Amino acid sequence: MWGMIATWRMALEGVEQSRTLLANHQSAGDAIEEAIKAVEDFPYYKSVGYGGLPNEEMEVELDAAYMDGTSFDFGAVCALKDVANPISVARKLSKQAVNNVLVDQGAKAYAQKEGFEQKEMLTDRAKIHYHNRLVDMKQEQLVPYAGHDTVGMVALDAHGQMVAGTSTSGLFMKKKGRVGDSPFIGSGLYVDSQIGGASATGLGEDIMKGILSYEIVRLMKEGKHPQEACEIATFSLEQELIARRGQAGDISVVAMDHQGRWGSASTIDNFSFVVTTETEGTVVYRTKRDGQRMEHSVADQEWLDRYLADRMQPLVVRKEGEDE
Amino acid sequence: MWGMIATWRMALEGVEQSRTLLANHQSAGDAIEEAIKAVEDFPYYKSVGYGGLPNEEMEVELDAAYMDGTSFDFGAVCALKDVANPISVARKLSKQAVNNVLVDQGAKAYAQKEGFEQKEMLTDRAKIHYHNRLVDMKQEQLVPYAGHDTVGMVALDAHGQMVAGTSTSGLFMKKKGRVGDSPFIGSGLYVDSQIGGASATGLGEDIMKGILSYEIVRLMKEGKHPQEACEIATFSLEQELIARRGQAGDISVVAMDHQGRWGSASTIDNFSFVVTTETEGTVVYRTKRDGQRMEHSVADQEWLDRYLADRMQPLVVRKEGEDE
Repeated sequence: MWGMIATWRMALEGVEQSRTLLANHQSAGDAIEEAIKAVEDFPYYKSVGYGGLPNEEMEVELDAAYMDGTSFDFGAVCALKDVANPISVARKLSKQAVNNVLVDQGAKAYAQKEGFEQKEMLTDRAKIHYHNRLVDMKQEQLVPYAGHDTVGMVALDAHGQMVAGTSTSGLFMKKKGRVGDSPFIGSGLYVDSQIGGASATGLGEDIMKGILSYEIVRLMKEGKHPQEACEIATFSLEQELIARRGQAGDISVVAMDHQGRWGSASTIDNFSFVVTTETEGTVVYRTKRDGQRMEHSVADQEWLDRYLADRMQPLVVRKEGEDE
Repeated sequence: MWGMIATWRMALEGVEQSRTLLANHQSAGDAIEEAIKAVEDFPYYKSVGYGGLPNEEMEVELDAAYMDGTSFDFGAVCALKDVANPISVARKLSKQAVNNVLVDQGAKAYAQKEGFEQKEMLTDRAKIHYHNRLVDMKQEQLVPYAGHDTVGMVALDAHGQMVAGTSTSGLFMKKKGRVGDSPFIGSGLYVDSQIGGASATGLGEDIMKGILSYEIVRLMKEGKHPQEACEIATFSLEQELIARRGQAGDISVVAMDHQGRWGSASTIDNFSFVVTTETEGTVVYRTKRDGQRMEHSVADQEWLDRYLADRMQPLVVRKEGEDE
């Protein structure tokens, strides 16, 4: 069995490309890197790679991580600027003996020295989003932190190897240098080829309080089905956060075990994810919560088309006093 | 019951100060911050704060983290330069709604804006260490990565609140921007006031593969005594690392539970730790491993004195061809 699971509809095209790799018995590592690169390169996704929304100083700072579930090799970059594919830098770092996690200037220097493609990651479209947000904030005191759609993936290849990866531009309007859960091992992702892997998206500051991806893998190790593991870990964390803090941010997760069985859970209404397996083909699911359980439904073509159309629609530069 | 446990003999003076705070029913947060500040401020400890050894570009880059076990507030700084007390910045960040983890330039800008003391953290003594290491490396191709003595602490106050903190300058001769486990929640530290807390020191790149501090807290949640939890988690991780990677880096941990019971484990011979509790006074222990179990012995005055004397002895600038 081989397969792959990824957060959000935006992963679809990348997962489809990597399905071909996995079907050809290529490595889970290549599948993860290629699929995430496809998302990073697509300019209309506002929270990953090129076209990602900037921090409050209008800089695009990118986080990515890569974990090999067999060797436990782990690499990550935090607040990396001006590099086209953060996931590729993270993968390369995972192969080093030490110095596997690099931040900001050190990460950038490493990527430059190693010849990774340099790229201005701030698009004109992202600048309009930034401008419009400033106008909105002036008018309505909006909380600036909406939209935190990390792409996170887990892949199982035909050789039984598993790899997980994440990539994100983080919270829109974040403070310079802010890092969420995505590049943190155990929180944004974790994988063990003998068990399974998981990845999370949502409010990183809350996800990390529960070391959520590690906890899902641990529950799978205890024998839980990935779906059950996702539900237990996600809703337990939500409950703990509410008990201790009065509130919980958005949390969504995906997981796949070493047999290619998969699961997902989310505390929000509009979460979607992509699954491809040897036996099931590629499917985009939309999630619906029913108490502490999830119901997933297959996304229809109309929804899939609208998802892309929404993200690609022309942007209008807002002026003060205008509605969104 | 109140108490505190900390990695390495170097924590002794700080823990003694904080013992007074805890005895006066002050908060675990104040105890952690004051004790770690004392270690950061002491110029002769080469791996924490002022006097910490630099990265390969001769810059002192500091990591620190702070976690509140009641609210789960978490804050951290990575690769922070020119700030006297990284632990204080981490604590302040933990109180923010979001943007709790800041790296490098963003962390520095925040610390400056918030008025934290600016300080050149590279001492003349650290420059001599750097120079000597370059000479040694030229002669013998030494692995540059020795000495990674993070200070990590867990405190329980008289009100039943628990807090954990870490501070380190990281691996000597690390790559610019390198971050280890110390500022990563779950790896370098984790605490839950209803259960207990743990902190780790050693080769961060290996510690993070097992999310070691979280795993110790989890084992305590299952009912394990802190000593047993430390042994199980540490030696299981060591075993996994050897099975999957052929080797395991140095790993040492300390833990305290919500009743003030404590434990420690280490894969190395020269680990030491400091405990203070309401009933036991303050004691420095040296650890000795016996298979998968630990034996701790009380450090005698001669050892304690030599520890300090070793670290404070005059340094000689080495020339090529001279022995260490």
